[in-house]
Amino acid sequence: MFKGVWEDGVPDLFGAIEAGGTKFVLAIGTSHDNIVAQTIIPTATPDETLGAAIAWFQDQRQLAAIGISCFGPVELDRTSPQWGYITQTTKPGWSQTDVAGLFGRTLECPVGFDTDVNGAVLGEYTHGAARGCDVAIYVTVGTGIGGGAIVNGVPLHGFRHPEMGHIRPRRHADDMEFDGICSFHGDCLEGLASGPAIKARWGASLSALADNHPAHDIIADYLSQFCATLLAFYSPQRIILGGGVMQTPRLLDRIKGKTGQLSKDYFAYDPQATIAAPNLDNMSGIVGAFELARKAIDDKI
Amino acid sequence: MFKGVWEDGVPDLFGAIEAGGTKFVLAIGTSHDNIVAQTIIPTATPDETLGAAIAWFQDQRQLAAIGISCFGPVELDRTSPQWGYITQTTKPGWSQTDVAGLFGRTLECPVGFDTDVNGAVLGEYTHGAARGCDVAIYVTVGTGIGGGAIVNGVPLHGFRHPEMGHIRPRRHADDMEFDGICSFHGDCLEGLASGPAIKARWGASLSALADNHPAHDIIADYLSQFCATLLAFYSPQRIILGGGVMQTPRLLDRIKGKTGQLSKDYFAYDPQATIAAPNLDNMSGIVGAFELARKAIDDKI
Repeated sequence: MFKGVWEDGVPDLFGAIEAGGTKFVLAIGTSHDNIVAQTIIPTATPDETLGAAIAWFQDQRQLAAIGISCFGPVELDRTSPQWGYITQTTKPGWSQTDVAGLFGRTLECPVGFDTDVNGAVLGEYTHGAARGCDVAIYVTVGTGIGGGAIVNGVPLHGFRHPEMGHIRPRRHADDMEFDGICSFHGDCLEGLASGPAIKARWGASLSALADNHPAHDIIADYLSQFCATLLAFYSPQRIILGGGVMQTPRLLDRIKGKTGQLSKDYFAYDPQATIAAPNLDNMSGIVGAFELARKAIDDKI
Repeated sequence: MFKGVWEDGVPDLFGAIEAGGTKFVLAIGTSHDNIVAQTIIPTATPDETLGAAIAWFQDQRQLAAIGISCFGPVELDRTSPQWGYITQTTKPGWSQTDVAGLFGRTLECPVGFDTDVNGAVLGEYTHGAARGCDVAIYVTVGTGIGGGAIVNGVPLHGFRHPEMGHIRPRRHADDMEFDGICSFHGDCLEGLASGPAIKARWGASLSALADNHPAHDIIADYLSQFCATLLAFYSPQRIILGGGVMQTPRLLDRIKGKTGQLSKDYFAYDPQATIAAPNLDNMSGIVGAFELARKAIDDKI
């Protein structure tokens, strides 16, 4: 049972969740710029975290719809019995967890559901750094590395959804010994340039290393190879680089410069304009989740 | 002036052009499976080749519309004064050549225009190996290496259009000495695995080398890295590999096997089903050009 904690007659309220591997951000509002309640829950077991999230929403007003930007891999096929599940994940305890269905049933409202990075790119497309772009990419470089794409206003799904962090860059000449930490691929991009991969080599986060430490050049090189490959494959108008590692001072500028060198101006683009930080700070995922909620109603899901 | 060489009362006729770096294939028909005239013109200078193509079409019946799948880079932005041009190309004499505008003006009909590989993926999507796919990729491995993408039925454009052949694979341990032949990037994929790159190393086409020649393994490795990156970036339901080099016996099977090994089953797909040869033989581009012509009328261009 829901409690009507606000006066009657207010506009429809949407719920929004950014479900991450470290924390769940929950919000309620008429839109992303009119949030009336917000909280954060640490990501523990599915029972604990999903239970606490549901209890928090149930303690508020009935929602018109809820949108969820979720860490993955997830099932996005609406015709699959596993739609809305986190599928086979490296995060202990979370494989085969029903997320979207659980919220839909308990909160009794339509649910929009996508990956965390597709949610983020949708947020940046509707209200941030990717406005007006036919093709834009959002990449998070943090505990893991992942990317979402939006093409003509629709987050890209395909067979499942992109897993962009698992490509194999060429190894930097000063970084040939490290085996990489990806449990699937060893020295793929995530295995070389994610936050844990940086800590595994140098014992600290990139921000904590002196600006002349070779790690800055090595990590910028890997991420620049990634951006050059994105340019070749997608011809995006915008590549947005977010996540904890991207908070490192000067990293974005290093990547812009190196990506231009790697591309040799072949892609006829301006790296300064194409590669950008998120415009919505750490709210891209939540803004996207509000959009997913709105779409769930529009699509009569 | 057009001559009405067929009886009156026949259905609308469409023109279709596959404009390649070696030859132009021209066709006229009510659709791709009812072609009433077809010819091939070698690609010489723009004046010669475009002049001969226009003369051939003018010698036939008035067209309802024409579609062109064109080698590139090309300008696809309908709002640009250079729309329909081949822009800065390595093919001598063809930079800054108006293609679509010229055909539209001289043949007095709407024009649909896209890259050769976007045309091919459109053809395979409407009538070939990519039917029913939300996301599919067509790659040609020949004189150059290029890829086109179709997402939710629409060829992907973005800032310009993908130039997929210019990514940098990791070098194969038995192929460390070769510098690569790409005039922009040296040892990018096109510089390592295109037909001319194969000839530059081993003096013959891949098909002409014995099945146990190490070249087969090396080229399959580079193309498998490419396919694994496509899987990570696009989550496509189909990757179609066409072009002259792909005519090499057993190459497709080698790539399927190696792509699976590289991906470590992370992308939850079956390489046997995802990676495929074109279904339309060497007609993908022409079938796509018929679709582009039809779209030009639907879009009232």
